[in-house]
Amino acid sequence: MESTTIAAVSTPPGVGGIAVIRLSGPRALEIADKVWKGKSLKNATSHTAHLGDIITPDDEVADQAVATIFHKGKSFTGEDTVEFSIHGSKWIQREVMALLIDAGAAPAAPGEFTKRAFINGRIDLAQAESIADTISAESRAAHRIATSAMKGELSRRLDGIRNDLITLASLLELELDFSEEDVEFADRNRLNELSDRTISDINRLRATFRKGKAIKDGIPTVIAGIPNAGKSTLLNALIEDEKAIVSDIPGTTRDTIEDTAEIGDVLFRFIDTAGLRDTEDTIEQIGVERAKTQLANASLVLWLIDPTTDIDPQLSLLQTLLPTLPAETTILPIITKKDLQPTPTANSKTIPSMIEISDGKNLMILPVIEISAKTGTGIDRLKATLTEIVTPEQSDTTIITNLRHYQALTATAEALHRIKEGLTTDLSPALIAQDLREAIHHLGTITGAITTDTLLQTIFSTFCIGK
Amino acid sequence: MESTTIAAVSTPPGVGGIAVIRLSGPRALEIADKVWKGKSLKNATSHTAHLGDIITPDDEVADQAVATIFHKGKSFTGEDTVEFSIHGSKWIQREVMALLIDAGAAPAAPGEFTKRAFINGRIDLAQAESIADTISAESRAAHRIATSAMKGELSRRLDGIRNDLITLASLLELELDFSEEDVEFADRNRLNELSDRTISDINRLRATFRKGKAIKDGIPTVIAGIPNAGKSTLLNALIEDEKAIVSDIPGTTRDTIEDTAEIGDVLFRFIDTAGLRDTEDTIEQIGVERAKTQLANASLVLWLIDPTTDIDPQLSLLQTLLPTLPAETTILPIITKKDLQPTPTANSKTIPSMIEISDGKNLMILPVIEISAKTGTGIDRLKATLTEIVTPEQSDTTIITNLRHYQALTATAEALHRIKEGLTTDLSPALIAQDLREAIHHLGTITGAITTDTLLQTIFSTFCIGK
Repeated sequence: MESTTIAAVSTPPGVGGIAVIRLSGPRALEIADKVWKGKSLKNATSHTAHLGDIITPDDEVADQAVATIFHKGKSFTGEDTVEFSIHGSKWIQREVMALLIDAGAAPAAPGEFTKRAFINGRIDLAQAESIADTISAESRAAHRIATSAMKGELSRRLDGIRNDLITLASLLELELDFSEEDVEFADRNRLNELSDRTISDINRLRATFRKGKAIKDGIPTVIAGIPNAGKSTLLNALIEDEKAIVSDIPGTTRDTIEDTAEIGDVLFRFIDTAGLRDTEDTIEQIGVERAKTQLANASLVLWLIDPTTDIDPQLSLLQTLLPTLPAETTILPIITKKDLQPTPTANSKTIPSMIEISDGKNLMILPVIEISAKTGTGIDRLKATLTEIVTPEQSDTTIITNLRHYQALTATAEALHRIKEGLTTDLSPALIAQDLREAIHHLGTITGAITTDTLLQTIFSTFCIGK
Repeated sequence: MESTTIAAVSTPPGVGGIAVIRLSGPRALEIADKVWKGKSLKNATSHTAHLGDIITPDDEVADQAVATIFHKGKSFTGEDTVEFSIHGSKWIQREVMALLIDAGAAPAAPGEFTKRAFINGRIDLAQAESIADTISAESRAAHRIATSAMKGELSRRLDGIRNDLITLASLLELELDFSEEDVEFADRNRLNELSDRTISDINRLRATFRKGKAIKDGIPTVIAGIPNAGKSTLLNALIEDEKAIVSDIPGTTRDTIEDTAEIGDVLFRFIDTAGLRDTEDTIEQIGVERAKTQLANASLVLWLIDPTTDIDPQLSLLQTLLPTLPAETTILPIITKKDLQPTPTANSKTIPSMIEISDGKNLMILPVIEISAKTGTGIDRLKATLTEIVTPEQSDTTIITNLRHYQALTATAEALHRIKEGLTTDLSPALIAQDLREAIHHLGTITGAITTDTLLQTIFSTFCIGK
């Protein structure tokens, strides 16, 4: 139990109608009463709200406020907590914080309220981390993943595995105590089988990481094609009726502008590329390099085809770029400008409904979506296709999005592999027990069964202040 | 009583630990229950907080939240109110707003909660306006003025005057009914005396406007002097230990950077000028023009004198600029670089402790402050002097900062002057009554006894959403 009482503005920084200052710790009620003129907060019932004045030591009113009381054991942190709802001026927020600190509160470190909730056993570590993810979630899908973790689904799953491993570990440790008697308390078959099961379980979780991370950060979707294929027009059409949730992320080293939009339940990070010029077989080197960089990180490529100019060179351009794409990348060929008269292709007088391309080894047959960003034709179908491709399966909601968790799971799987190897080579119980302890340790760091100050420091320092 | 139920995010825009969504209106509890999984909010006691889930129509959890209930007549707006304390992600804020609107709430217009508090008689109009001032206050002094208005001190004072005028007006109206009988119900002496008293009361209030506005927006303080007199160094010294409350206001048309700092209880808006060159009698025209523009709006001028170069030309430069300053401007001559060896002046071997300058008519004797921004000498004394000059008198806390109030008071005074004139010229009671009604009207627009939709629209449209 922490002995200090901490205070912080918990609402977003800046000016607003109201702001909330949270005060938590053993002296929260006492400190609150020092700055409070109104009904004594110390004697107030838990979960009640009270109108009163926040006053300076000179009895001057700093602000009229509502104080809501949450008692120890019934609050987010598990400690006595007072939430002051004050007027949202910068000056008042600063002044009330100053008064609370003068009255004995310490300014809260980033994530310190959540850290205390963890330390007081209100939530486990994976839940605590998911709170930060919840706060930064920018789409329904990202939010769903974060809240599922917040409810402890990941932790429950990992705790089950960990408990099985602990049982086996204790039996192995017992063998060590009786090492001279050559007994086997821990069933080697069961250990092998459990390792197999755990490894495959962990691998299923690890497999969700790439997708989970993409959902959390926005699915990287590159819009590419020859100049004037309608890339920017499509981008605008995709984000248009989602204007409220569009954000501009200025390009970092490249002068690319990324636009994000929530389509269906998923956040897409659309990356507009400069038009690629197709001059026979030689594409300008600079365009290729830039496209390659963007395409190498793409989950989705929207390959725009302009039907008012010859289609075939546009398909061979895509074919040229194909080897630079990651294997998991989905390509959506899109024929734009459906409202305009198409140019017949060399092979056909009409627009193809499927296109065939090859990466040199495999032939891909891709269905074509026809759109007109101008008239809106096909845009809904494209959006539906986009969400269909990326929407996470509802059946398995436990998805890993946190790099720390991914690394801990990987380390666990590696230790389990060593155990399996040790079993086949008849390794000494002492060494197997060592690997087992390591696997248990890594799993424990995810839920917080194993913590170090450094680990907690690392995790909570990424939080915002006031959470 | 409004029939709609409104909802808005009341906390500052952006991402934070928590955000608060306020829901107010006759259907607030019913609408809240539609999105709520937990204890029924409709049956909850006023001023109680409840932990529960905000859910979608598909029963999916959008967020875990705390709902605080305020019943009709006991809330800020005077209506049934629910405040949802939710996780502060942009997505959750948007989602919960969408759910409330789907459930029947209307998005609140700017200031609509405060407008309802006014319409429901919880506060008067001047109080409502002072809430916006309270939220934007950037210093203790500005905050103090705003909260004094918020408590209704201005309104009480004006209501007293207005009631006296109404009594006289009703007596005058009575005379009109009996106009053929040539009676005088309204005592002309009392009317004249009351007009006098009211005019002088109003003028006292009007006189506070310039200072009040300066306190609200920051006292415009121009730092001027010859190049290398230590202007920027002084600016840094003045704002240094106030770093947390320093803000950069980029210059509008000029490329001047303004820095604000709260010193004592007052916000100063420091305006750094380019060094002014003194070449005999001709100062470069551009420098003069720029300085003039800045000096013409200055409440305070810090005239920096570099003692390591001849002082006399620096004093005559100040003298040259003097006619361009407003009459109310206070000039503080400051001798910088106290740590360095001074250059003797033509008249004296030492630094003067007073300087004499003339604006052509009056001779001013100004005490000199010596500082060294480098060693910190004199900075505290300078700060003390600054606050001494501008701190509002505690004795009269009713200060006008609102242009609308100032204009209404001016119009009231003008009508009262016409009444006084009418009394001396024996104007007909009908015309005097007309002027009296006008004076009463203008006073009424300040407290909101007289309102029009346009007036309310104008006032509340400047509020932030959620207040």
